[in-house]
Amino acid sequence: MQDSSVTFIGLGAMGEPMASSVLRSGVALTVYNRSRERAAPLAAAGAKVADSVAAAVTPGGVVITMLANDAALLDVTLGGSGVADRLGAGGLHISMSTVSPETSRHLAAEHAKRGSLWLSAPVFGRPEAAAAQKLWICQSGTAEAKARAKPLLEAMGQAIHDFGEEPGAANVVKLSGNFLILSAVEAMAEALTLAEKSGIDRQALAGFLGQTIFNCPIYQNYGRILAAQTYEPAGFKLELGMKDVRLVRDAAESATVPMPLADLLHARLLTSLAKGRGQLDWTAIEMVSAEDAGKRA
Amino acid sequence: MQDSSVTFIGLGAMGEPMASSVLRSGVALTVYNRSRERAAPLAAAGAKVADSVAAAVTPGGVVITMLANDAALLDVTLGGSGVADRLGAGGLHISMSTVSPETSRHLAAEHAKRGSLWLSAPVFGRPEAAAAQKLWICQSGTAEAKARAKPLLEAMGQAIHDFGEEPGAANVVKLSGNFLILSAVEAMAEALTLAEKSGIDRQALAGFLGQTIFNCPIYQNYGRILAAQTYEPAGFKLELGMKDVRLVRDAAESATVPMPLADLLHARLLTSLAKGRGQLDWTAIEMVSAEDAGKRA
Amino acid sequence: MQDSSVTFIGLGAMGEPMASSVLRSGVALTVYNRSRERAAPLAAAGAKVADSVAAAVTPGGVVITMLANDAALLDVTLGGSGVADRLGAGGLHISMSTVSPETSRHLAAEHAKRGSLWLSAPVFGRPEAAAAQKLWICQSGTAEAKARAKPLLEAMGQAIHDFGEEPGAANVVKLSGNFLILSAVEAMAEALTLAEKSGIDRQALAGFLGQTIFNCPIYQNYGRILAAQTYEPAGFKLELGMKDVRLVRDAAESATVPMPLADLLHARLLTSLAKGRGQLDWTAIEMVSAEDAGKRA
Amino acid sequence: MQDSSVTFIGLGAMGEPMASSVLRSGVALTVYNRSRERAAPLAAAGAKVADSVAAAVTPGGVVITMLANDAALLDVTLGGSGVADRLGAGGLHISMSTVSPETSRHLAAEHAKRGSLWLSAPVFGRPEAAAAQKLWICQSGTAEAKARAKPLLEAMGQAIHDFGEEPGAANVVKLSGNFLILSAVEAMAEALTLAEKSGIDRQALAGFLGQTIFNCPIYQNYGRILAAQTYEPAGFKLELGMKDVRLVRDAAESATVPMPLADLLHARLLTSLAKGRGQLDWTAIEMVSAEDAGKRA
Repeated sequence: MQDSSVTFIGLGAMGEPMASSVLRSGVALTVYNRSRERAAPLAAAGAKVADSVAAAVTPGGVVITMLANDAALLDVTLGGSGVADRLGAGGLHISMSTVSPETSRHLAAEHAKRGSLWLSAPVFGRPEAAAAQKLWICQSGTAEAKARAKPLLEAMGQAIHDFGEEPGAANVVKLSGNFLILSAVEAMAEALTLAEKSGIDRQALAGFLGQTIFNCPIYQNYGRILAAQTYEPAGFKLELGMKDVRLVRDAAESATVPMPLADLLHARLLTSLAKGRGQLDWTAIEMVSAEDAGKRA
Repeated sequence: MQDSSVTFIGLGAMGEPMASSVLRSGVALTVYNRSRERAAPLAAAGAKVADSVAAAVTPGGVVITMLANDAALLDVTLGGSGVADRLGAGGLHISMSTVSPETSRHLAAEHAKRGSLWLSAPVFGRPEAAAAQKLWICQSGTAEAKARAKPLLEAMGQAIHDFGEEPGAANVVKLSGNFLILSAVEAMAEALTLAEKSGIDRQALAGFLGQTIFNCPIYQNYGRILAAQTYEPAGFKLELGMKDVRLVRDAAESATVPMPLADLLHARLLTSLAKGRGQLDWTAIEMVSAEDAGKRA
Repeated sequence: MQDSSVTFIGLGAMGEPMASSVLRSGVALTVYNRSRERAAPLAAAGAKVADSVAAAVTPGGVVITMLANDAALLDVTLGGSGVADRLGAGGLHISMSTVSPETSRHLAAEHAKRGSLWLSAPVFGRPEAAAAQKLWICQSGTAEAKARAKPLLEAMGQAIHDFGEEPGAANVVKLSGNFLILSAVEAMAEALTLAEKSGIDRQALAGFLGQTIFNCPIYQNYGRILAAQTYEPAGFKLELGMKDVRLVRDAAESATVPMPLADLLHARLLTSLAKGRGQLDWTAIEMVSAEDAGKRA
Repeated sequence: MQDSSVTFIGLGAMGEPMASSVLRSGVALTVYNRSRERAAPLAAAGAKVADSVAAAVTPGGVVITMLANDAALLDVTLGGSGVADRLGAGGLHISMSTVSPETSRHLAAEHAKRGSLWLSAPVFGRPEAAAAQKLWICQSGTAEAKARAKPLLEAMGQAIHDFGEEPGAANVVKLSGNFLILSAVEAMAEALTLAEKSGIDRQALAGFLGQTIFNCPIYQNYGRILAAQTYEPAGFKLELGMKDVRLVRDAAESATVPMPLADLLHARLLTSLAKGRGQLDWTAIEMVSAEDAGKRA
């Protein structure tokens, strides 16, 4: 069964192009965003714009959410006139935000109580990838939820990677991925500082790495940014990176897994926030490495 | 000018296939190794086997060294009847070992005193890559040294990356690369431990990462090893990894560059050595993550 | 004005001797504890034992709480028939538990809404010190609250140290103190492992330190425990130490203060919990140092 | 047997008052220092001033050395016309400098070859303590060396603590002590930064700690400095602290003992050196904590 009408809530830098992909796939789409102006391009392309969460959701239908953090997702889902109660029996909630596994487990249970399905389906990719339907999607949840979500996820991503039934699993994978990316950034930052103070050209080192042992986009793109030390405009804001590393640490503590590298990243991010860099790109943690080595006084 | 006769010293797991590549390129090769039996395959392929360093080196000729560590290189080069004195005026020493930038600077100066050239040319790649002439080579030194070494390096590697005139620069690049690789290992180790204790299949997570955001050999190959937790036989021994991270820390201290991630890697390696794992693959630092999380009691 | 009748809630290892001190000072004391048997010695000494929080609290009176954690304090204070509502106008709540500054700020505001006073007054000292009226008490809150609490605090402690008006300040001091103590434990643990593996007697080193540069009880008492490596019975359980370090990290993140040493302690504690050591004394974090050095396989 | 004539080499901030104590005890003292002017007060008090190490040392006599580092001690002892050869059979070398255990082991063996005794006897205490004969002395070496050194050590210190026969043991104890002191500094630095950003007076917190749970000189004196954030003039220069922590890390690596807290201290010191603070007091590592929290921009 393919759902003929679908609701998309959360039209931020990622949500807007994702909703656009769904719309282009031929689905009748209703959208909702707290600040309504974000919905204009979608409206122009044929989406129906709702004035409230309650008005946006069809009982028994499908809701996709792409929100800023756990608090926003919990509020939209369980708050007054929220998604969970409106969706009710027979509904499906596809949660694509980067949130904690705990929140997913909690909301999956709340939906189950009401007879509706839950699918955790966070994504990897920048806004450009979202616009090009090139996201990588991780999913976890019930087989029934996955089957029903499939055509919608295929409209947004280039591949769907499955991590089983446990609702929080896909969230752990998403958090792990962001942890790995920022770890690579920290490693490059330290190496570039060492290289520069040893008289080596930053671009030369970053270029070499991206062409040889680390010939993949993360090292190539972030390597270029780190070599140039240009952290504006932000592709992904440092303060959002902090939110994600905080979620990693929370998940690690819940699972009783010491992660000293996550602690190091957290310290770098917290130092960066203390220095007023929350709006820079998250690769700006490099500035701490440089400063600790006596550069950029 | 192409050198018609060349000496290769150090026929270990890397040196032997590298010497073999030089031999195949048509150069008349003399080889030397402390334990002579390592030279047998090269002798069978036409190399001349020398009984001592002194006998191996032709005054004014070219010597390539691929040795285990700084001490071995210093001994072979400056010890009695060593490379430096034998080579003398007009010679070229291509040093391909992973050693400290300080050792390279020191030996470059010693060769200069004697009228011979020095080229630092460490490599990236496993023995299989060496056998297939697919190494990545970093070089730094004088233009004259580079010009003369070029055909020999091309016989061994798929590409030569230049890092300027300063003799230690290529060594810093090599050390940085190994630091980055082991940083990626540590990050994957922590993420896989978190994933496993969260009920996620290790292979599934490693496979996903290698196919998506980290689609490069380091993450794919090491990800496979880390997911399977099989650390024998060693591709690169942990005790050699320790040597390299020690050199990274020494270089960082010399350059006054704090590298907290290098300190973390050092602690992982030292713990591993204390537990008797020096002969395992260096990815076995993962076992510390697992143990700290209460696995593999 | 001295309060002639007072309520004490929470009769754990610390609360019981503290309540006993108050009782001995001549105050008519009503006590409450979730498991009633803990109240027996106090009842025998003349205290009135209440069956519920509601029954224990006198409107407009004084309540002292000494509870296990933030959740317990929040529940007793704001839960149904809780302290805040029962106490009402004219009351005073002296909170002596180790809780977060945030909880204190929140509860101070809740009491203010109801016209009652709040005093944060956490303590340092072991149960023996509590029994001997030798606790060190840190306080923060309004002048009015301090004046009224004074005779009660004097009945329990050897000194009252004032940290101003802000309700959370005394909690930050208490958390800082526990952070400093566990930092000293970690430092001694690492030094003793180094000493032992260098052939030095653990007792000799610990004894020397406690007699010379660190001649204070923390180093003397914990030094003795760490030298002997005997972590049972627990003077202060490791799982409670984890709770406190978690509160330190939360406070640090709220105040945007990177604390890498707190991160290290957290990792030690989390490793210890993963290995099933939550019921041992918190000095048992030493076992991780020893194991990482290849001891106690 | 008491030695009637003794040589003291190294008249720095510590050595000068130590030599003065020996002189006051009635021993005929010959002194030597690289820059001769440091010897003037001792000459005025009756010491004989030598022009060279060779002239200062009496064959078969006693030499006490108090030098800046391993290199200086090795040079004075084993260099041309050095202590070891001059002292010869029947001599005793009491080494009081803060050096590596490895250097002590090496020099003990060199003296043994020549038939002379070696005693490692590093000290704890500031110059004021040295002037007042209040140093704490740690010793390790042969029983014969200890017996002969006893009256001299008693002339300098308030107590002698014995750590057995192994020459390096006393050095490990000295390094451990300095590691513990700087660990306490780091812990206080982090706590004071947290306190200040939480609105708490730095002096109030430092004063409280020094009067209660940490009522010992290290916390009292360093707490006062850290609260005031005044790092000049230096009581003990940061660059010397770096030397000591480097020796701790070397000893830890030799003994295969991971010491993550030593790594943290090293990073703090290296950052401080990179920022040009080598001449400040070593407590100035606090500035990194403050800066990372956005203070002292």
